[in-house]
Amino acid sequence: MASLAATRIDHQRETHTPTSFVVTFPTDQLLRMDSGVALAPLTIAYQTYGQLNAAHSNAVLVCHALTGDQHVANVHPLTGKPGWWDVLVGPGKPIDTDRYFVICSNVVGGCLGTTGPASRGPDGRTYGLDMPIVTIRDMVRAQSMLVDHLGIDSLFCVAGGSMGGMQVLQWAALFPQRVFSAMPIATAARHSSQNIAFHEVGRQAIMADPDWCGGRYIDCETRPEKGLSVARMAAHVTYLSDQALHAKFGRKLQDRAAPTFSFDADFQVESYLRYQGRSFVERFDANSYLYMTRAMDYFDLAADYGGVLAKAFKGTSTRFCVVSFTSDWLFPTSDSRAIVHALNAGGASVSFVEIETDKGHDAFLLDIPDLVATSRGFLDAAGRARGLG
Amino acid sequence: MASLAATRIDHQRETHTPTSFVVTFPTDQLLRMDSGVALAPLTIAYQTYGQLNAAHSNAVLVCHALTGDQHVANVHPLTGKPGWWDVLVGPGKPIDTDRYFVICSNVVGGCLGTTGPASRGPDGRTYGLDMPIVTIRDMVRAQSMLVDHLGIDSLFCVAGGSMGGMQVLQWAALFPQRVFSAMPIATAARHSSQNIAFHEVGRQAIMADPDWCGGRYIDCETRPEKGLSVARMAAHVTYLSDQALHAKFGRKLQDRAAPTFSFDADFQVESYLRYQGRSFVERFDANSYLYMTRAMDYFDLAADYGGVLAKAFKGTSTRFCVVSFTSDWLFPTSDSRAIVHALNAGGASVSFVEIETDKGHDAFLLDIPDLVATSRGFLDAAGRARGLG
Repeated sequence: MASLAATRIDHQRETHTPTSFVVTFPTDQLLRMDSGVALAPLTIAYQTYGQLNAAHSNAVLVCHALTGDQHVANVHPLTGKPGWWDVLVGPGKPIDTDRYFVICSNVVGGCLGTTGPASRGPDGRTYGLDMPIVTIRDMVRAQSMLVDHLGIDSLFCVAGGSMGGMQVLQWAALFPQRVFSAMPIATAARHSSQNIAFHEVGRQAIMADPDWCGGRYIDCETRPEKGLSVARMAAHVTYLSDQALHAKFGRKLQDRAAPTFSFDADFQVESYLRYQGRSFVERFDANSYLYMTRAMDYFDLAADYGGVLAKAFKGTSTRFCVVSFTSDWLFPTSDSRAIVHALNAGGASVSFVEIETDKGHDAFLLDIPDLVATSRGFLDAAGRARGLG
Repeated sequence: MASLAATRIDHQRETHTPTSFVVTFPTDQLLRMDSGVALAPLTIAYQTYGQLNAAHSNAVLVCHALTGDQHVANVHPLTGKPGWWDVLVGPGKPIDTDRYFVICSNVVGGCLGTTGPASRGPDGRTYGLDMPIVTIRDMVRAQSMLVDHLGIDSLFCVAGGSMGGMQVLQWAALFPQRVFSAMPIATAARHSSQNIAFHEVGRQAIMADPDWCGGRYIDCETRPEKGLSVARMAAHVTYLSDQALHAKFGRKLQDRAAPTFSFDADFQVESYLRYQGRSFVERFDANSYLYMTRAMDYFDLAADYGGVLAKAFKGTSTRFCVVSFTSDWLFPTSDSRAIVHALNAGGASVSFVEIETDKGHDAFLLDIPDLVATSRGFLDAAGRARGLG
């Protein structure tokens, strides 16, 4: 693990001068947020892959999840690891960068170059908790400004999993004419009580860390690494399934023949979790974690349509492919079914696939053959309907 | 919430001079622990209810869960709340204190009067992390010393849920001749990888709190309240079910008509969880939490019998009543079925009831009519077989 100082410097580099494209909108192009605040200036950091065709009809917007970022299909500048959706995005992959122009932007409230709590506001001070609360709709509004900026009127596809899937649903509801096809994966039209509860645990873990410093840790030159690490550990357990943990770790001991009768990480699963916590703090900002979880908690698409989800999709011409995973207990298949029922009631064209896997919620990020085949089949058919080669 | 100082003083009173019966064994009556350490002197704090009959044949030992204590059927000296198993234990209740002599002791490693990390060792210093690691078998060995001390050879019943259920299984395996009947409820013969993972999150939350002070917070005159509170919050979510949380809270807001666009506890479930965390620290010791969770993690009854659980119960004459709850995802019915299969293979007399409820793991503590009826029926039949009036 990098030293605290080195980690902080790398982070600050990616926050203020990211290794991505960056657009900063003129201050009269405000982001009007659900909280009532108008944010300006808005900066968006984003990656693109492939070429936009002459008709501007082959753009795919990929939306990232809670702890994701714009580095969907390239080596990550902080971790050196492959892109987070390398299994689906790239040359010859289902989201084929030889055919499509793929865009992925860091969401508003994020920490890799888009305006968020670690950014500096107009007065030159770090936002911290003065950053307005961000909603999924705010993220989508900001993305629509980026898509406008790139000269794209209608997206061929909007795709994403988990919080990314929430953005997909919000895009389809807010801008139906701009979304030819949509792939919401392992997601829900509203965040459940249990999921809000798990998020609150993570937030309290961060805020309990004295190095969080009331949210002003950048000014304090500290980092709430322990709190953020605990938050990540708690969340990470929910991304896996009981079966996956049993298959991967069971009760196996870590590099020892017998229990040590201590609080050392005797079990492999403990050692794994501690590693997940430690490595997360190298690439993520604690306040961004607060904002991202809050955005998900607040998400309840039906609430904007009189409590009737079908109204969000009434008369839509977008084609949908909804995907869930059998062992995902964070966003169970019942959440996806609720989306499918609403889409059916709204008269939409929908494919729904529940994929059998023991990998839990994390499955949407993994090389699951049925996920690869499903996305490829859906996008190939949508591409033919769109007249893409 | 009581002030920090007042809470600390109340705690210390219950640790050192509890409002319970207390037995301290002579130093030559050692507790030989699985870690290899011999603990002396051993003090056990316990409650009893009802009268031991002349034949000493009507004693019921109730084993408490992770955050439980000996106050099973009386008002709690710290919280002022009813006993934790008031629904099952008392006059006319299934564990009928008019018929049975009920014993409940604080487990070794606990914090309400039995020797644990908050107790003072022979040198007068608080144990802290110098307390040896405690196993479920150590808890049971200590309980057997108490039962000997009370002049009881054979217990009419040993009953408990969750970690209490682990002790029930361990009693039946270790002292089959001393257990006439056994009620392991919402438990498992070994702790799962997922459950170890959740426990590790809680431990890391405590240890991340600078007021934990390397485990010596009593000497430091601090208390790791924030860390313990986060640990409790994380655990508490796992005690409930998604359905129960949805039914109880859904996405309802707390005393407000609209979201505040802040990190306040907007949702009722957040407010509820924060309260659970705050109130827990009033009655529990952080190091005890570490020891209790570790004891559960280490529990793997089959491992002591060549990996074959049935061997733990071979030829037993104990009658068993195994109970699980449909919505308990921490100790799912599959864990109870594994116990039942082993008991069947061992030739034991077993009743097994899976109770339909949406209350999750917490169900074992609640007034669930099927639980009350099942325990009453089982104990009444066992009582007749034992010749109790």
